[in-house]
Amino acid sequence: MGVKEIKLEDLDTDKFIREKVEEISSTVGEGLAINALSGGVDSSVVTILGYKALGNRLKTYFVNNGLMREGEPEAIVSVFNDMGINVELVDAQETFFNALKDKIDPEEKREAITNAFYNDIFGCLVRETGAKYLLQGTNYTDIEETVAGIKRQHNILEQIGINPEEMYGYKIIEPLIQLRKDSIRKVGKVLGLPEAIYKRPPFPGPALAARVIGDVTQERVNTVRNATKIVEEELSESEAFQYLAILHEDKVVGVREGKRAYGLQIEVRCWESKDAKIGSPTRLAYDVLERLADRITSEVPGVVSVTYNITKKPPSTIEAV
Amino acid sequence: MGVKEIKLEDLDTDKFIREKVEEISSTVGEGLAINALSGGVDSSVVTILGYKALGNRLKTYFVNNGLMREGEPEAIVSVFNDMGINVELVDAQETFFNALKDKIDPEEKREAITNAFYNDIFGCLVRETGAKYLLQGTNYTDIEETVAGIKRQHNILEQIGINPEEMYGYKIIEPLIQLRKDSIRKVGKVLGLPEAIYKRPPFPGPALAARVIGDVTQERVNTVRNATKIVEEELSESEAFQYLAILHEDKVVGVREGKRAYGLQIEVRCWESKDAKIGSPTRLAYDVLERLADRITSEVPGVVSVTYNITKKPPSTIEAV
Repeated sequence: MGVKEIKLEDLDTDKFIREKVEEISSTVGEGLAINALSGGVDSSVVTILGYKALGNRLKTYFVNNGLMREGEPEAIVSVFNDMGINVELVDAQETFFNALKDKIDPEEKREAITNAFYNDIFGCLVRETGAKYLLQGTNYTDIEETVAGIKRQHNILEQIGINPEEMYGYKIIEPLIQLRKDSIRKVGKVLGLPEAIYKRPPFPGPALAARVIGDVTQERVNTVRNATKIVEEELSESEAFQYLAILHEDKVVGVREGKRAYGLQIEVRCWESKDAKIGSPTRLAYDVLERLADRITSEVPGVVSVTYNITKKPPSTIEAV
Repeated sequence: MGVKEIKLEDLDTDKFIREKVEEISSTVGEGLAINALSGGVDSSVVTILGYKALGNRLKTYFVNNGLMREGEPEAIVSVFNDMGINVELVDAQETFFNALKDKIDPEEKREAITNAFYNDIFGCLVRETGAKYLLQGTNYTDIEETVAGIKRQHNILEQIGINPEEMYGYKIIEPLIQLRKDSIRKVGKVLGLPEAIYKRPPFPGPALAARVIGDVTQERVNTVRNATKIVEEELSESEAFQYLAILHEDKVVGVREGKRAYGLQIEVRCWESKDAKIGSPTRLAYDVLERLADRITSEVPGVVSVTYNITKKPPSTIEAV
């Protein structure tokens, strides 16, 4: 696929950081670059590499697409401000919910989010700032999955035939494209990222929209956001690779106070994996599973049923959308 | 609710059997009665009570609604033939699939099945045979749940305002109406039912239609039938109260041979319960859960994901429809 993987055991972090900082610096020259920080380890590492290379000539934005976890936009911005890196918060909730309206098919959702992000939001920011470059944290697994046709990753453009310069008016720099997640975490640690960031469970590019089966409305995103908060609270000590809540579109029969309650179902997934390429469900204790179900059905309005994924990847994927 | 429960600890099985046989005998007099045997413990016990009371004046039918488990119609008929009880197999698959066409709402599905059963099938059989009575295995939990408005049980008529004599032209006799499942199993054992029957996991009145979320087509029933077979094979040693497979309508993303596979999801439920009134998920070993997922995703065409229910009843119910 034209990109050569650097495996964890072959990674010299200091050398990698030095080379990438130089590359970014020489590519951008005296101009401006922009990047979007999501708070995941990939975009966080890119932000620091870019800041090291360009200082204030890197403009970092946190795009609040309305699909983030609870309190996430503010929390992430403040972590980076504490490291002396300025991050501007962009409220783009309306843009994204309009783009997602009536999209049911997972690939259409992902395409709508890609277009809203690169065209509507970043197209504007590039024009406003005059930046010629967008830095982003595409990694080796993202490319591999998109090329293989498993899932369209939100940050993959050239590999699916999109020329970002022609289409959006800027070039894309991808310093992490040779690394998988485990290597990126290691670089993040060396770069001085707080543990909460470099150990942060992966969060999908399309954010909570990837966790809603069927219609992605503000109300349904709120439901999955509430469930996600509980799952992350209960499983943060689990040492698992990733844990998530999915809102199903199917409704199931339940019972509340002795009466029929036809309601929502949340699926919990918790993964053991090194790099998201293959994975298996974490063997969580039943006490933990039952507490998850109890809390989600009592704290998230409308939910009467919670399931736990027991399928490996493959044939499952990490996310359901 | 006008019916007095006989609790397991108060049940004198010999006395109960004697009284019910006398009741059926004196109610039906010299006429004919008919009943439907599904192979579940309730209808099996009713069949034997009715046979003891009426001998060959009880006409027992196995209605193949196309919603039964694999090989079930033939297996059940043969068990009863071995006990000297004649059971006639009625092929009603078309009637039921036509009645279920385009029904999505669980209560509409249940109503469609009730009407097909009592009106189309039994209405006919009653006219053909001249029987005036239908014996059926309604139990105390069925009434309770229907009256409480949790779920319309397929065999509940009077409690929801239907007069079967006016509506269908026959009277209904319900000898098990004061008992819950645990007591019915005990009566079944005393009556000499094979263990495979009196310990048989409960199977819902609407059969596999209660295990298909969304459209109930022949193809989708086949999918859930295949998954059910695997779940019953793997969990028959579990001593659980009930175990089942549910086909979801939601599709999820999976991966097969390195390519995207947008496919089906099966939910497995396995219950610890005494009487279906309350229940909790069986704490199955992860080896068992993973074997279930492996088998279902490799043996049932189109399935890429399997989940396990982790919610108690309440707020869940035993079945999803």
